[in-house]
Amino acid sequence: MEELKKDFMAIAIREARRGMERNEGGPFGAVVVRGGQVVARAHNRVIKTHDPTAHAEILAIRRASKKLGRFDLSDCAIYTTCEPCPMCLAAVYWAKIRRLYYGCTKEDAASIRFDDRYIYGVLKGMVKRPRLKSVRIDRDACLGLFRMWVKKRNRVQY
Amino acid sequence: MEELKKDFMAIAIREARRGMERNEGGPFGAVVVRGGQVVARAHNRVIKTHDPTAHAEILAIRRASKKLGRFDLSDCAIYTTCEPCPMCLAAVYWAKIRRLYYGCTKEDAASIRFDDRYIYGVLKGMVKRPRLKSVRIDRDACLGLFRMWVKKRNRVQY
Repeated sequence: MEELKKDFMAIAIREARRGMERNEGGPFGAVVVRGGQVVARAHNRVIKTHDPTAHAEILAIRRASKKLGRFDLSDCAIYTTCEPCPMCLAAVYWAKIRRLYYGCTKEDAASIRFDDRYIYGVLKGMVKRPRLKSVRIDRDACLGLFRMWVKKRNRVQY
Repeated sequence: MEELKKDFMAIAIREARRGMERNEGGPFGAVVVRGGQVVARAHNRVIKTHDPTAHAEILAIRRASKKLGRFDLSDCAIYTTCEPCPMCLAAVYWAKIRRLYYGCTKEDAASIRFDDRYIYGVLKGMVKRPRLKSVRIDRDACLGLFRMWVKKRNRVQY
C-alpha cells in the first residue's frame, strides 16, 4: 500500500516535470485516484493557458469529474507534489475528496517564490488592509435570485 | 459611476438567472469588467458540467484571462451576485484583481444551504478534525522538482 502511494506520487512528479519541460507552468503536478486506479492527472498550466486558476489540482479535479460524470468525488484521493494553495484546498473540499497526499510543504513553495501565505493570511483575517477592496452592492436585487432558487421545482442541491 | 456598477451587477444577475433556468447550476453569476467594459460573464455550471470548480467567478476569470491573453487581471474588477467562497476568493487574488463587488452575503448563501462556512473554518484552522485527511509523503522526491525549476533558464514567474 505504501509502495502504491509512492507510485501515484511518482506519476504526479512526472506530470509536473512534463509541464515544466513544455513551459506550460510551474513545478506542480496532481493525480486523482479511485480504487487503486488513476482517474486523472494534470500539471500546472498557468503560463501556457494564461489562466490563473489552472493549478494542477484544479485541472486534475476537473478532468476526474468529467471522466466520472459527477461532481462528488468522495470515493477518490488526490496526490499532489506540493501542499495545496487555498484555492485548490477549497476545491478539494467542494469535490468532497477525503484523502490528500502532498509532497513539498507551503514553506518549500515559499522558498521558490510561490507564496500562498498572503492568501492564507487574508482568509484567516490576519491581513489588516487586503490589497483586494470588497464592496457590497445591490444585495436586494441579488437576493431575488435566492428566492427563485428556493421556489425552483427541479433544483439539484450540490 | 454608481449607476454603472448597478448595470454590471444587473448583468451578473441576468447570467445567474439564465444558469438556473437552464438547470446548469446554482443561483450565482459573475462579470469581469475592465475600463468600463464587460470582458467576460459567467454563471455557475456545477450541475451541467459535473465540475465542482465551475463556480461563476472561476469561469468568469478563466474566460477573461483567455480573452485578454494574460493571467494578470490587475486592471479588472469583478462583480459577483454573492460573496465568494474561499476557492473563488483565492482565485480572485491569483488573478491579481483589485476590486470586488458582491451582492448577497455568505450568511444569505448559508440560508439557502450553500454553506461555505465549513471550508472557511478549515482554512482558518478552526476545524479540529477536518473531514479531509492530509498526509505528507515523498517530500524529497518532490523537492527535486523545485530544484529543477530554480535552475530552469527560461522560466516565467507568475
